[in-house]
Amino acid sequence: MINFTVGPVQSSDAVRAVGAEQVPYFRTTEFSQLMLENESLVKKFAKATDDSKVAFITGSGSAGMETAIMNTLTSEDKAIVVNGGSFGHRFVELCELHEIPFTEIKLDAGKTLKAEHLVGFEGKGYTTFIVNKHETSTGVHYDMNLISDFCKRNNLFLIVDCISTFLADPFDMSGLGADIMITGSQKALACPPGISVMILSPKALKRVECVKCKCQYLDLKLALKNAERGQTPWTPAVGILRQIHARLKEIEANGGVDAEISRTAALANYFREQIKSLPFEIVSESLSNAVTPLHPTTASAYDIFLKIKDDYGMWICPNGGDMKDSIFRVGHIGYLSEADYDKLVDAFKDLQKKGFI
Amino acid sequence: MINFTVGPVQSSDAVRAVGAEQVPYFRTTEFSQLMLENESLVKKFAKATDDSKVAFITGSGSAGMETAIMNTLTSEDKAIVVNGGSFGHRFVELCELHEIPFTEIKLDAGKTLKAEHLVGFEGKGYTTFIVNKHETSTGVHYDMNLISDFCKRNNLFLIVDCISTFLADPFDMSGLGADIMITGSQKALACPPGISVMILSPKALKRVECVKCKCQYLDLKLALKNAERGQTPWTPAVGILRQIHARLKEIEANGGVDAEISRTAALANYFREQIKSLPFEIVSESLSNAVTPLHPTTASAYDIFLKIKDDYGMWICPNGGDMKDSIFRVGHIGYLSEADYDKLVDAFKDLQKKGFI
Repeated sequence: MINFTVGPVQSSDAVRAVGAEQVPYFRTTEFSQLMLENESLVKKFAKATDDSKVAFITGSGSAGMETAIMNTLTSEDKAIVVNGGSFGHRFVELCELHEIPFTEIKLDAGKTLKAEHLVGFEGKGYTTFIVNKHETSTGVHYDMNLISDFCKRNNLFLIVDCISTFLADPFDMSGLGADIMITGSQKALACPPGISVMILSPKALKRVECVKCKCQYLDLKLALKNAERGQTPWTPAVGILRQIHARLKEIEANGGVDAEISRTAALANYFREQIKSLPFEIVSESLSNAVTPLHPTTASAYDIFLKIKDDYGMWICPNGGDMKDSIFRVGHIGYLSEADYDKLVDAFKDLQKKGFI
Repeated sequence: MINFTVGPVQSSDAVRAVGAEQVPYFRTTEFSQLMLENESLVKKFAKATDDSKVAFITGSGSAGMETAIMNTLTSEDKAIVVNGGSFGHRFVELCELHEIPFTEIKLDAGKTLKAEHLVGFEGKGYTTFIVNKHETSTGVHYDMNLISDFCKRNNLFLIVDCISTFLADPFDMSGLGADIMITGSQKALACPPGISVMILSPKALKRVECVKCKCQYLDLKLALKNAERGQTPWTPAVGILRQIHARLKEIEANGGVDAEISRTAALANYFREQIKSLPFEIVSESLSNAVTPLHPTTASAYDIFLKIKDDYGMWICPNGGDMKDSIFRVGHIGYLSEADYDKLVDAFKDLQKKGFI
């Protein structure tokens, strides 16, 4: 099977080799050292300031999103939430559950955030801005410079879900003045799922100190205290953290984050060139390198997903809910090559020849 | 390195082989089928009733413990918590954080729960009993028949942390009338850490329906709803869930849970016989097959841990806090053989010959 979904994605041989090893005991200086190197490389690749801190949460990216909300916001805040799809909607749900006052900017599927959406929020006493840099459900990649300028002007605390875009698109945490960035092990980090990574700016660290987190497992005070010595409060997914280490070292050896982003961009462009003659419409007006969201005009998106899986041995990424039949996505993150895309495009062309699409 | 800790422990070749594979896309009928088989085998091995349900949480065992508290107890409850060490203390902290009224039964290190501890709690309006079946920090394995009889007599909701004892010691969930059992992937399941497994009785399922969980990520309503079709609300640790599947099938093929428990018991007994001449005292008055907790009478426990790690290439399990120098533990779970214990005992004897212990 070739995997073109947006997670879990394919891992490199080095990462898989670590997966085959016995998982070592972890309350040791050896594992602490590995974790401190993970922290250092994650900060480097996100262009975070030196005085930022990293927490590794054993959980999905959603756990990271909720950890951010529970540890840095209170009912005294007033947040703006960009809701452009399933993942924006998750932040809306989280603010509701944790009683964080908020206003949402609701965007239609495929539409990006523009300056006109923000105008009405200038100087209105908001404290916080929450956004999925890449709304993965519809493949919309927001303009972070627009958001950053707005936040700086209005002195807003900025929470950025980078789950599917970190290492796939440029991200300059310190330049943007972002306070929290969240990612997951199974996206462009290309490791198995199970770890959410968070970077916290000094401003975020101060908030964590002052906010009482009502969940021990997701309490960043405990995580950050343990992280000082390269440890975690609970037994973490040690195997995946070791795979993340192998992967970060691999990216570093291959030229660093910018080279990795260029590689992903080249694959995305290669694929997008190949599908121009196919009956697919790109549904996003602002694409990430991580994924190409497509609306097939002649067949059900979900039927195409099943066909590609069962008849051609490849996974593309189906959408859920009311987009199930109208949109599928093709990912460009993970261990993929142009030759893999040739096979996928051949499969699409074969389906076209057979009159299926 | 040979790993004698209590987690992560050593995995079988079959489990490691899965770790080397690419992690597949998981919103598929194929993965759902695997998850339903996991559920079925976990229930079988825990001797749970057919109408019990299983949730797989991507997180540590501690996440499972908190999930149990957050989803089934409220301020209307009145709980008894057995606190015999670090893990009993964790339940105390969780009840405090989530404002569950409780009384703790505090036991000295190494001491077990006896009928006399429970007498004063008969007919006093308690609703819930919370216990770590095996207090892993000091290796004390409680008498579940005593606890079960007390709970049945007093109609108590029974939460049992089985994290380090499931598959190592007998556990009859339906016979005991236990309502929640919790375990983790990295104990006797002998997979990498990252998944907590919970079984819920019909009574527990009813409580979940009525309790509002204040954490979306750990909300069992969402987990159980998705589990009906073999899925999870968030991207789970797919790789580890596939390793759990391989491991459960392996146990089944080798004779089932009773054979696995006998195998572990034989290893524990083998080790305990070999160390009789060494300057170690067993500190628990009620041992589990999972671990032997030892107090070295002639040297620091932590120094012995470091020595065994650095000079002999083996991990024994250090204790934390104020037991750091007085207790270490030797685990019997995971992929270990008598030959492994021979090496460990030889190392201890070598340390003795050198005058280190």
